[in-house]
Amino acid sequence: MQNQNLYADLPSNSDAGERFDALLARPGLRIERIASLGQASPPDFWYDQDEAEWVVLLQGSAGLRFADEPETRVLQPGDWLYIAAHRRHRVEWTAAGETTVWLAVHFSE
Amino acid sequence: MQNQNLYADLPSNSDAGERFDALLARPGLRIERIASLGQASPPDFWYDQDEAEWVVLLQGSAGLRFADEPETRVLQPGDWLYIAAHRRHRVEWTAAGETTVWLAVHFSE
Repeated sequence: MQNQNLYADLPSNSDAGERFDALLARPGLRIERIASLGQASPPDFWYDQDEAEWVVLLQGSAGLRFADEPETRVLQPGDWLYIAAHRRHRVEWTAAGETTVWLAVHFSE
Repeated sequence: MQNQNLYADLPSNSDAGERFDALLARPGLRIERIASLGQASPPDFWYDQDEAEWVVLLQGSAGLRFADEPETRVLQPGDWLYIAAHRRHRVEWTAAGETTVWLAVHFSE
């Protein structure tokens, strides 16, 4: 029996943009792998999501900014956080030259 | 702002048994870190859970056995699987001499 692996089949070039893979989807719950290769949110773009999110960075690194915080948070492997619905945030940067892998759990509350 | 990290504050000795830390708990949803230091399920013990589980092994390694499969699955970092409610399973072994870290999402469906 072949296992499914979070680090398998990662994008190897940034031209295709970020990649989002749904690993599990149920009503009110979605587990997703996000792979970034140096991408950031577009200038002045803020995520403003209807659902809450629990997210962990597993590989690479990233700068995550909340609209209600003055400083960008630097995320290293293992760093996780809870993002309340409608708490505005953006990805300021992801590591260049390596694939940043996130695991996100989106849920209604 | 200090981030919370999945690999921080891991148990360093196996005498205390496996460790379970709830990272997020909501009605019908629980995200949990499990740290094992060589532990396995007791002989003839099978998990038989009322909730479904999505689980990924992030560090270390483990042997996971399903009652409905003849072979133990060997899990390496990044390997993930979905375990339906009441699908009986057990942990045959976890790596000796290092901490095995799992991230489990328990949910009702």
